[in-house]
Amino acid sequence: MTNKPPSKQDQYHQKRMQRKKAQIDASIAKADIEKGVMLVVTGNGKGKSTSAFGMVARALGHGLRVGVCQFIKSRTDTGEEAFFRQQENVEWHVLGDGFTWDTQDRQGDIDSAKRGWQVAETMLQDSRFDLVVLDELTYLLSLDYLDKEPVLSALAKRPAQQHVVVTGRSAIVELKDMADTVSDIRDEKHAYTSGIKAQQGVDW
Amino acid sequence: MTNKPPSKQDQYHQKRMQRKKAQIDASIAKADIEKGVMLVVTGNGKGKSTSAFGMVARALGHGLRVGVCQFIKSRTDTGEEAFFRQQENVEWHVLGDGFTWDTQDRQGDIDSAKRGWQVAETMLQDSRFDLVVLDELTYLLSLDYLDKEPVLSALAKRPAQQHVVVTGRSAIVELKDMADTVSDIRDEKHAYTSGIKAQQGVDW
Repeated sequence: MTNKPPSKQDQYHQKRMQRKKAQIDASIAKADIEKGVMLVVTGNGKGKSTSAFGMVARALGHGLRVGVCQFIKSRTDTGEEAFFRQQENVEWHVLGDGFTWDTQDRQGDIDSAKRGWQVAETMLQDSRFDLVVLDELTYLLSLDYLDKEPVLSALAKRPAQQHVVVTGRSAIVELKDMADTVSDIRDEKHAYTSGIKAQQGVDW
Repeated sequence: MTNKPPSKQDQYHQKRMQRKKAQIDASIAKADIEKGVMLVVTGNGKGKSTSAFGMVARALGHGLRVGVCQFIKSRTDTGEEAFFRQQENVEWHVLGDGFTWDTQDRQGDIDSAKRGWQVAETMLQDSRFDLVVLDELTYLLSLDYLDKEPVLSALAKRPAQQHVVVTGRSAIVELKDMADTVSDIRDEKHAYTSGIKAQQGVDW
């Protein structure tokens, strides 16, 4: 690329990177377990469901089979649904009635949660699903719409190679304890609070 | 769903949700600006690139046109690339040589960054792209591989309706200041540190 001799900064960089590479190679060698992982993506920031949909794309690219359960949410005109419904190897269910402040009907929300959970539970028992996305599941537990025990038990007993992603704010501690990976997305800034409308292709 | 009279808990819930709905409706009414937004997804947690790929899916579902530039990363066997390359309306570029600790060649990395940036800059001048993903761009600035000024200027001057997502750790403050939305993904727990291998369909 260049014929200049390496500068002092370049030499320092190389030494530091040699040390870093040795550390990283050692930890990669140590990480040798292959199994279905459980990821929880929580927090008040933007990107929770979106990152689950990114994983759906990634999984489909490897020829895996994916099931998606959207709890709480009721809209069926989203870009993600339109897009993934055209693809092979995806089963997509919209199972909610809207956010609690829209429905204003706690008992109705609980009934929906229970019906929705049956769909999820079936996927968690079916090893043909390589990845199961439980979008907004956290609310069903934090709002006591579902009993914890059967949900945690179904997650624990899922097929050994099945990956599962749970998204939503306020994940209960039991979900995080069970998860292999927990990402907490913090809202440092949100377009919405500066008066910018929810945008097609960005927010839905 | 049920014929039981509403319980005290249900009544309390309804009152609280009526107040919440009024607040939310008011803030939705206030958010009426439509424009291309800039999102920065940063932090040390899992889900940054993945959430950008979720946005790609979402945008494609609305018939939008998407450009993706992957800096730093050099692997071309990822699920996301395999998947999105099959789709219409996506242009995908892998522009990196690997992480700095793998290449151990600072000057080579800088040369790659400069070549890659030219591809990105062309997209940021092209209003036919509705969404541009600049995956791992943050490193090119935090490591001083690129000068800040031309990068920030190209982002600022992009077409008014074009959305852009910038991902990567350690986003510099100027990027965050310019962004409409900033999500900071924190690593609460990562499968990798418990000895679990990077998994096909989850991590790549």
